[in-house]
Amino acid sequence: MSDDDIAALTVALRQFAKDRDWDPFHTPKNLASALIVEAGELLEHFQWLDRGATEDLSARQREAVAMEIADVFLYLIRLADKLEVDLIGVARRKLELNALKYPVALSRGTSKKYTDL
Amino acid sequence: MSDDDIAALTVALRQFAKDRDWDPFHTPKNLASALIVEAGELLEHFQWLDRGATEDLSARQREAVAMEIADVFLYLIRLADKLEVDLIGVARRKLELNALKYPVALSRGTSKKYTDL
Amino acid sequence: MSDDDIAALTVALRQFAKDRDWDPFHTPKNLASALIVEAGELLEHFQWLDRGATEDLSARQREAVAMEIADVFLYLIRLADKLEVDLIGVARRKLELNALKYPVALSRGTSKKYTDL
Amino acid sequence: MSDDDIAALTVALRQFAKDRDWDPFHTPKNLASALIVEAGELLEHFQWLDRGATEDLSARQREAVAMEIADVFLYLIRLADKLEVDLIGVARRKLELNALKYPVALSRGTSKKYTDL
Repeated sequence: MSDDDIAALTVALRQFAKDRDWDPFHTPKNLASALIVEAGELLEHFQWLDRGATEDLSARQREAVAMEIADVFLYLIRLADKLEVDLIGVARRKLELNALKYPVALSRGTSKKYTDL
Repeated sequence: MSDDDIAALTVALRQFAKDRDWDPFHTPKNLASALIVEAGELLEHFQWLDRGATEDLSARQREAVAMEIADVFLYLIRLADKLEVDLIGVARRKLELNALKYPVALSRGTSKKYTDL
Repeated sequence: MSDDDIAALTVALRQFAKDRDWDPFHTPKNLASALIVEAGELLEHFQWLDRGATEDLSARQREAVAMEIADVFLYLIRLADKLEVDLIGVARRKLELNALKYPVALSRGTSKKYTDL
Repeated sequence: MSDDDIAALTVALRQFAKDRDWDPFHTPKNLASALIVEAGELLEHFQWLDRGATEDLSARQREAVAMEIADVFLYLIRLADKLEVDLIGVARRKLELNALKYPVALSRGTSKKYTDL
């Protein structure tokens, strides 16, 4: 990995869309739709399972799940690019906000507050 | 940014869950559910808009959208950690597969094939 | 149609699950997951389209869309059954609440408020 | 209930949109987006629970869940209206197809095939 991992994927996705004249389809609205469609395909693998831990999945399912995770990630990178959002930056910022929202002392072991996340 | 951006977020999220005794809730199934719930909150901002380009959003909406993008990303990192998936690695691999699936010459300017993605 | 349309489908779905010993899989959580997975398959047909009006869809797409609509409806009926929710009753009640929430005089022609729905 | 339950809700939703000049926003694409957003709000109530059975939910949660179920149903009715899909008819047809796809003898007690649904 290099510090340009996400940046490199961002550029590669731009080129991918450009090569195919797909850029006009890649509005933020459409990308947010495509992202949730992929999130649904990801969830599909887990919908009838109890926990969906690695050991509950066959090798084939694990590969399929990895590919769906990749799809969600690729659309997320593309959407962030279109909206000029720095993925790593907002993730860090949100994590800090979550730490304030869910103080350790009050959140311990209860999913109650967490449910409000 | 450093090459440990995603790795650092992965570790921070592990600690975040551990501090609150939330790890038992973080099954892959639950994380995939939480991810799509956040993807829905992200899409909500765009549902009645035509395109949802940056200029269609107020400063407040842009900030809210950035926070939803962060939520999706954080759950994606956490899920990938639980399933031992290398986010950057699978994204690169999927992008290569997509290039084979959608050859430039056949995919140009048509969303037909793309709809099958 | 008879007044037992939804009731008849509810009973048929109960029997369908019973015949296959699928009832243990049909927890409300799993059904809500399956529902959103189907909602994703429904949205997939529209993700790269502008509006997705009937005339934008081929006969084959229209049939596929109808089948996805059916899947969402079937899971919704099954979930409502498991939670003892009267679908028609809550729909009427929610529509009345929406009328109070979005008064005609204030909501006319603006999607602003509607976005908060 | 009368045999016009869904038909009456369909007409009421048409009038609701007309009164507020919201019809232009109600493209099939936008309605399918709004539907999945509501499906996400529904799933949110279950995301950290094991099963989400009625007894796992407080009275307040049960009411909130019922309202989300209503939202999904209302958007489903509205979408079906826009695409001229007969909800009850397609649900019956899909159930018959599912019975062929998942024969009792082969499907019993296994979620394997069901996972492919």
